[in-house]
Amino acid sequence: MVDPAIVLYANEAFYLAFNTRDIDAMDRLWSRHTPSVCIHPGWRGLFDRDEIMISWRDIFDYNQAETVIVCHEPRVLFQGNIMSVVCYEELPQGWLIATNNFVVENEEIHIFHHQASACVNAQEISDVGKPTIQ
Amino acid sequence: MVDPAIVLYANEAFYLAFNTRDIDAMDRLWSRHTPSVCIHPGWRGLFDRDEIMISWRDIFDYNQAETVIVCHEPRVLFQGNIMSVVCYEELPQGWLIATNNFVVENEEIHIFHHQASACVNAQEISDVGKPTIQ
Repeated sequence: MVDPAIVLYANEAFYLAFNTRDIDAMDRLWSRHTPSVCIHPGWRGLFDRDEIMISWRDIFDYNQAETVIVCHEPRVLFQGNIMSVVCYEELPQGWLIATNNFVVENEEIHIFHHQASACVNAQEISDVGKPTIQ
Repeated sequence: MVDPAIVLYANEAFYLAFNTRDIDAMDRLWSRHTPSVCIHPGWRGLFDRDEIMISWRDIFDYNQAETVIVCHEPRVLFQGNIMSVVCYEELPQGWLIATNNFVVENEEIHIFHHQASACVNAQEISDVGKPTIQ
């Protein structure tokens, strides 16, 4: 079993890549071997790796105004041989809930699924930032 | 590898349980062995199986006005040893995009992850109802 700390680290690396608008780091994080999906809030699903990377590039270009995501209450779930992190994203525009799924490929952990969507009552969280392992 | 038709069948069974408000069928579908998560549109994440089933019961009670979901364009993705279906949900209130993840337990296929969220341009789909295997 993968150490949950490694899963949380990968999840943090995902948000660090977003917050620093580091497209190369985002590219290294995304899987090259597992069928992937990226669902930005309100968007249709993106399934093609190149299309997913273009979407991040477009978002980073659009976000020059320095939108930063603060990840709250990450929860690690071991599901089959994948690892899922469900967490809340605090943005200036509002709160989202995100699922980030990871898989180990060639001894490296990679994200292959991201879905972020509006969460109207996310602010009710009690343990801000406290990770949970399930 | 599980036949994609079986994954699509399980996905259809999920929407049939919803549309007929059959709480027993929904209960049979949900995993008992894999850490599960259910994210209804706008809701916080539900991680406890009993809490998930109560949420479906509440939604079914609330939906006596016969809200029906039409599932469009289901796409099956084999990710590690889990199977994911990403599809669009047409409801009277609007369109959603959903991820439904399945796992085989004791030779039966079960759902362990559901996240449905608003999709503003889902109506642009070209192949309504046509399944894709990835």
